[in-house]
Amino acid sequence: MKIKLGLIQMKVEDNREDNIRKAEENIRKAKALGAELIILPEMFTTPYKNDNFPVFMEEYPGPTNDMLSKVSKELDVYIVGGSIPEGDGGRIYNTSYVYNNKGELIGKHRKAHMFDIDVKGKISFKESDTLSPGNESTLFDINGIKMGLIICYDIRFPEFSRKLSLSGAKAIIVPAAFNMTTGPAHWHLSARARALDNQVYVMMCSQSRNEGGVYVAYGNSLVASPWGDVIDSLDEKEGILITEIDTEYIERVREELPLLKHRREEIY
Amino acid sequence: MKIKLGLIQMKVEDNREDNIRKAEENIRKAKALGAELIILPEMFTTPYKNDNFPVFMEEYPGPTNDMLSKVSKELDVYIVGGSIPEGDGGRIYNTSYVYNNKGELIGKHRKAHMFDIDVKGKISFKESDTLSPGNESTLFDINGIKMGLIICYDIRFPEFSRKLSLSGAKAIIVPAAFNMTTGPAHWHLSARARALDNQVYVMMCSQSRNEGGVYVAYGNSLVASPWGDVIDSLDEKEGILITEIDTEYIERVREELPLLKHRREEIY
Repeated sequence: MKIKLGLIQMKVEDNREDNIRKAEENIRKAKALGAELIILPEMFTTPYKNDNFPVFMEEYPGPTNDMLSKVSKELDVYIVGGSIPEGDGGRIYNTSYVYNNKGELIGKHRKAHMFDIDVKGKISFKESDTLSPGNESTLFDINGIKMGLIICYDIRFPEFSRKLSLSGAKAIIVPAAFNMTTGPAHWHLSARARALDNQVYVMMCSQSRNEGGVYVAYGNSLVASPWGDVIDSLDEKEGILITEIDTEYIERVREELPLLKHRREEIY
Repeated sequence: MKIKLGLIQMKVEDNREDNIRKAEENIRKAKALGAELIILPEMFTTPYKNDNFPVFMEEYPGPTNDMLSKVSKELDVYIVGGSIPEGDGGRIYNTSYVYNNKGELIGKHRKAHMFDIDVKGKISFKESDTLSPGNESTLFDINGIKMGLIICYDIRFPEFSRKLSLSGAKAIIVPAAFNMTTGPAHWHLSARARALDNQVYVMMCSQSRNEGGVYVAYGNSLVASPWGDVIDSLDEKEGILITEIDTEYIERVREELPLLKHRREEIY
């Protein structure tokens, strides 16, 4: 079975309502281009910085979820709502909501690994200053095909994607925002490695590059195949990546190079 | 601490004694170039094909181990003896022997994952037709630094390298022989991914390309850093890769990008 994807690489502005409106416009464009499953980037309602998260956060259901529910139903599409800062019980999470083509919430992932890094003279960020981690791995179903959902830094941990793959995921969706240090070094590598090892498609959806921003996103939204190659990608600018995944190809790769079958759990 | 490596990318001939002699000559050359830890490729005593393994196999200690022990002591070097077909109790294993600079056997790894693949029209191989798998993960120690040792297809399984890294490995050594299908597609990717995820050096040592062979090795022996980049590599021809690893760099990467610390075992 084939599924047509639309990855929305949008530039995020300093105004939540503008960002929600822009996301909706792009979802409509992606639908017009044939997308059945539409993916938004990490923190698509707020510039990616700690000061903003408490200000831009929403408790469920807020304006972002209202829009996602309404539009997914109206357009008859699945939407992975990138992520937004979610307020809940005095904490803030980096949360992705998934809607089916009837407007129903069918999945929710809270980023489980906090991005606290300090590469001297290049990039420092301490997400845990404002955000709390989720504790679950997340799967949802589209036309009988299981999809895993993780957020950005979650991809750094091979165990987390492996768990999704062993739970039946045929694809792993990754709203993300690598930067100008980790992006060139690790963006393609991380996507290709998870895809190859787990014999799944990996979809990485980034904000477009915001040259003047405090945190400059790398862009380069892409889809990697179960053979570990990048089948389609964007550059750093705003755009919509329309491409297709094919579950028959997954089965073929898994038959020819039976990595999942050759695992030896008993010796790990 | 720095360790100078010598990776020997040799062409393997159809005669065991010639191959052992050639390996010894190359070890002497690598020593002359300053190498302290010398690595040979997978199956360096035999062309890589199932028909050969029962013919070229050795029971321990055979002529290959005699040479490795003698030369490591004489030259005051550590040697990871690629691998050879090892006969033991009616079975054949794909086995790597490690000698310290006193000529003592300090490690032994039996390839734990059998290379049974069938990429239509490109490459088929069924190692399990003749070989049996080992069941252990393997570490050894050089000047207080722990090194993991796996063989070729073992690198395909992230759990196996992860186990070595969590056991303290600062480097993972991989005698290997990818082919002209899996090599271009996955050789660099596999090395870089394991290195980055586990924040270790990964050394991949291949036979040189043997264009007319039944199984054509990819060559491209390389060393990947804990940041996930390739720091040095050969092309497809015979050669010795002399390069250096630095444990201080490992510590720096692990501090700046604390992936091992950020693991969340409880949710995997």
